Amino acid sequence: MLKIGEFSFQSRLLLGTGKFHDYDVQKQAVAVSEAEILTFAVRRMNIFEAHQPDLLDKLDVTKYTLLPNTAGAKTAEEAVRIAKLAKASGLCDMVKVEVIGDDKTLLPDPFETFEACRILLAEGFTVLPYISDDVVLAKRLEELGVHAVMPAAAPIGSGRGIVNPLNLRFIIEQAKVPVIVDAGIGSPADAAFAMELGADGVLLNTAVSGANDPIMMAHAMKLAVEAGRMGYEAGRIPKKRYAAASSPLEGMITGE
Amino acid sequence: MLKIGEFSFQSRLLLGTGKFHDYDVQKQAVAVSEAEILTFAVRRMNIFEAHQPDLLDKLDVTKYTLLPNTAGAKTAEEAVRIAKLAKASGLCDMVKVEVIGDDKTLLPDPFETFEACRILLAEGFTVLPYISDDVVLAKRLEELGVHAVMPAAAPIGSGRGIVNPLNLRFIIEQAKVPVIVDAGIGSPADAAFAMELGADGVLLNTAVSGANDPIMMAHAMKLAVEAGRMGYEAGRIPKKRYAAASSPLEGMITGE
Amino acid sequence: MLKIGEFSFQSRLLLGTGKFHDYDVQKQAVAVSEAEILTFAVRRMNIFEAHQPDLLDKLDVTKYTLLPNTAGAKTAEEAVRIAKLAKASGLCDMVKVEVIGDDKTLLPDPFETFEACRILLAEGFTVLPYISDDVVLAKRLEELGVHAVMPAAAPIGSGRGIVNPLNLRFIIEQAKVPVIVDAGIGSPADAAFAMELGADGVLLNTAVSGANDPIMMAHAMKLAVEAGRMGYEAGRIPKKRYAAASSPLEGMITGE
Amino acid sequence: MLKIGEFSFQSRLLLGTGKFHDYDVQKQAVAVSEAEILTFAVRRMNIFEAHQPDLLDKLDVTKYTLLPNTAGAKTAEEAVRIAKLAKASGLCDMVKVEVIGDDKTLLPDPFETFEACRILLAEGFTVLPYISDDVVLAKRLEELGVHAVMPAAAPIGSGRGIVNPLNLRFIIEQAKVPVIVDAGIGSPADAAFAMELGADGVLLNTAVSGANDPIMMAHAMKLAVEAGRMGYEAGRIPKKRYAAASSPLEGMITGE
Repeated sequence: MLKIGEFSFQSRLLLGTGKFHDYDVQKQAVAVSEAEILTFAVRRMNIFEAHQPDLLDKLDVTKYTLLPNTAGAKTAEEAVRIAKLAKASGLCDMVKVEVIGDDKTLLPDPFETFEACRILLAEGFTVLPYISDDVVLAKRLEELGVHAVMPAAAPIGSGRGIVNPLNLRFIIEQAKVPVIVDAGIGSPADAAFAMELGADGVLLNTAVSGANDPIMMAHAMKLAVEAGRMGYEAGRIPKKRYAAASSPLEGMITGE
Repeated sequence: MLKIGEFSFQSRLLLGTGKFHDYDVQKQAVAVSEAEILTFAVRRMNIFEAHQPDLLDKLDVTKYTLLPNTAGAKTAEEAVRIAKLAKASGLCDMVKVEVIGDDKTLLPDPFETFEACRILLAEGFTVLPYISDDVVLAKRLEELGVHAVMPAAAPIGSGRGIVNPLNLRFIIEQAKVPVIVDAGIGSPADAAFAMELGADGVLLNTAVSGANDPIMMAHAMKLAVEAGRMGYEAGRIPKKRYAAASSPLEGMITGE
Repeated sequence: MLKIGEFSFQSRLLLGTGKFHDYDVQKQAVAVSEAEILTFAVRRMNIFEAHQPDLLDKLDVTKYTLLPNTAGAKTAEEAVRIAKLAKASGLCDMVKVEVIGDDKTLLPDPFETFEACRILLAEGFTVLPYISDDVVLAKRLEELGVHAVMPAAAPIGSGRGIVNPLNLRFIIEQAKVPVIVDAGIGSPADAAFAMELGADGVLLNTAVSGANDPIMMAHAMKLAVEAGRMGYEAGRIPKKRYAAASSPLEGMITGE
Repeated sequence: MLKIGEFSFQSRLLLGTGKFHDYDVQKQAVAVSEAEILTFAVRRMNIFEAHQPDLLDKLDVTKYTLLPNTAGAKTAEEAVRIAKLAKASGLCDMVKVEVIGDDKTLLPDPFETFEACRILLAEGFTVLPYISDDVVLAKRLEELGVHAVMPAAAPIGSGRGIVNPLNLRFIIEQAKVPVIVDAGIGSPADAAFAMELGADGVLLNTAVSGANDPIMMAHAMKLAVEAGRMGYEAGRIPKKRYAAASSPLEGMITGE
């Protein structure tokens, strides 16, 4: 069971709601994913600007834990303002703090992210910052009191998978709060790998919404996250250099 | 659906039966894996030598397609002899031709493997050779008439996963018979990755039998193979260098 | 030519002076490396505590640009104090700001590093911070005015090479100051790869001092850094999926 | 020193002469590479067909050991015929047996390659087969009597570098004849890495001839091969998971 702040979840897959070409596809993808936490960009919503769509239009939002994100913010101040707007609109159970520091890579700004988290924690939010895989940054945020850390596997939308499993493992080993791998997941194998490293959850969006068949991919991701988690809990075999026969010379089952 | 020779299968996970520490664990792992094809080393069986155990003792063999392997053979002649013994004993629906050419890495001998396949095909066997990921070797075996090719992901029991995805992809792209990735799988992510590359199936043994909890790992592998296959069919997003916002500036869902 | 602040160098290899088992070996390794910038930990020196050795004892320090580092510091305050001590002792041309945030991985603290750089820049130091490969952190430090950034390839002393070439490339592409890859280099190929990514220099220590033959390895590293730089400048061929014959069907040299 | 059959070489870099856009550039690239062994496709030469160019026109062939290759051959018979033609023309010190089994990947055919080697060895040639990285294939060829094995790092001209270092290492560890990594090298780091794995030499062509500045890249490759060899001989540090301070708490140089 995944626990973030006061919330508990059966599913370890968090799904983004943006970038779907069709609301009905979005709805079905969300359904088959069995995700319990949905994220969306407040700035892309009609709660931010009237002419924006309602990304959650087709979804029964009472069934989900809503994780608005502050995408589009470039400063702590903007992120805080967006988070408060989400709360005021009633669409905020938890908040994903996303403060972009670079337009090309969309990688997050450690300083503004930290500051935004500080302010929002003081105001009682349940705070999940989107961060790089900087190990000490994750540690400092945890010391600050965030409810989970969300290191990127790779740049948003890049689909490159876990570029640096070493740092991810370091973050997971030191963390006492949940570690949700966020951004960069491209395929079910990537999601499974993140979970096998010991991540508590995986958040993805483009990998599903951008697939040729988003609904089937949502199903695949659900299975992959479960498979990866089971693989982690089941205790995988070590990697070895040399072969070891599956059919050993000495029988390992010697009869009853 | 996976078709090999005259056989058809729902499951794309093939499971080895060796190396389990306990028959009951083996039985349950096989059950939760939902594998329909089971492999076993004829030489490790009591059909080969009386003092060997019956690896299939606990299993209702009528429910499975049996894929005896010729593990232990170092020549075509030995492999052929072992295959015939399996057939004579009634424990042979298909045969996995495994002729080891190197004791340290347990990697297969291309020449003896080819020769063994040639003979067994002539005798009417359904033949699945275990091979390296040599692309032209796979092609030549297919031209010879084998019913599937089984390239190694990595040395047997090494748990290193897909060491050379490039060759595997080349083999898959050229193949008209099923490609079953065999040997070297260590974790569910590895199995999912093999399937995402377009493999028709995955055969594994140590990754399950050697896990701390073989039954849970068998379940994880079942899900991973399904997830990987769905991921392949659903059409993954391309890998990109630069980020692409999940929450794009221009809305992709513009309302109804 | 490598320019850092007011200094210019022919060599792009920066060498650490610690961890050698023998001063004469250190001296010869430094000589064959043809490094012009030497780094050393102030805290390991007799300028910090009288009972410490003089790491530079055998070296003619007038021939080198000295880059003391603040290793051992866990706060900005400690780093600043160490830097000032180095300057007061006359052993400081430039300073490598190293503020460790985690004892297990020895990865740097972004916040304390930033603050130390801010103070030392204000005092007129030539400042080179050791950082993670966080892309936005590198950008913010450059905006602050540091004279170079020194992202880690991998944890100090791990010998793992360039774990995340993607981030390194992003840092290099955005940087207007030199990027010196620091920490984690294990072999000449790693050093060459860093340079091929476009790094302006490579700093290493353990890869040389910990080799079986440090003098030969120092020579190898010198060549590797040159090879990698030339490879970068010469413009490598693109990576392709499919083969392209070196001996093409259509002749590319068609005579004169 | 590299010994192949009766020949000895100072240089461990073998250079292909094809695909250069200009003969003068080719000549200078060959010169700065300091390669002592040059390879060329017989079929692309005027000794094969009169209208073909003379790839060696600008080079003083008496200064080099000539390694004609049988590129273009798809059968053992063709390869043998090409090798004999090279010998008859006086342009053959050693022969690189290259029998392509797949037009798309240009990967070699293990069976036809083996047969061509068998015939050419019987006729007294010094034989160096171009092969996949199939470990047992390399072993069988060595048992047959070839004078070196030349496993591909990656498909010809792909520039992907060492795709499967594991197999390459296995081949190197078992080999008693020289192992020359051939095909797929893209950059100096790739060449250095091949040498660090213990290869006896590296053969490349496109990586130099296809670079923006082939002459500079030839120089880079020369340095990289030397760096990699020295790195191998100097004994690199092990890869570790956790950091080890270059400036350890306990001084390793404790003074004199």
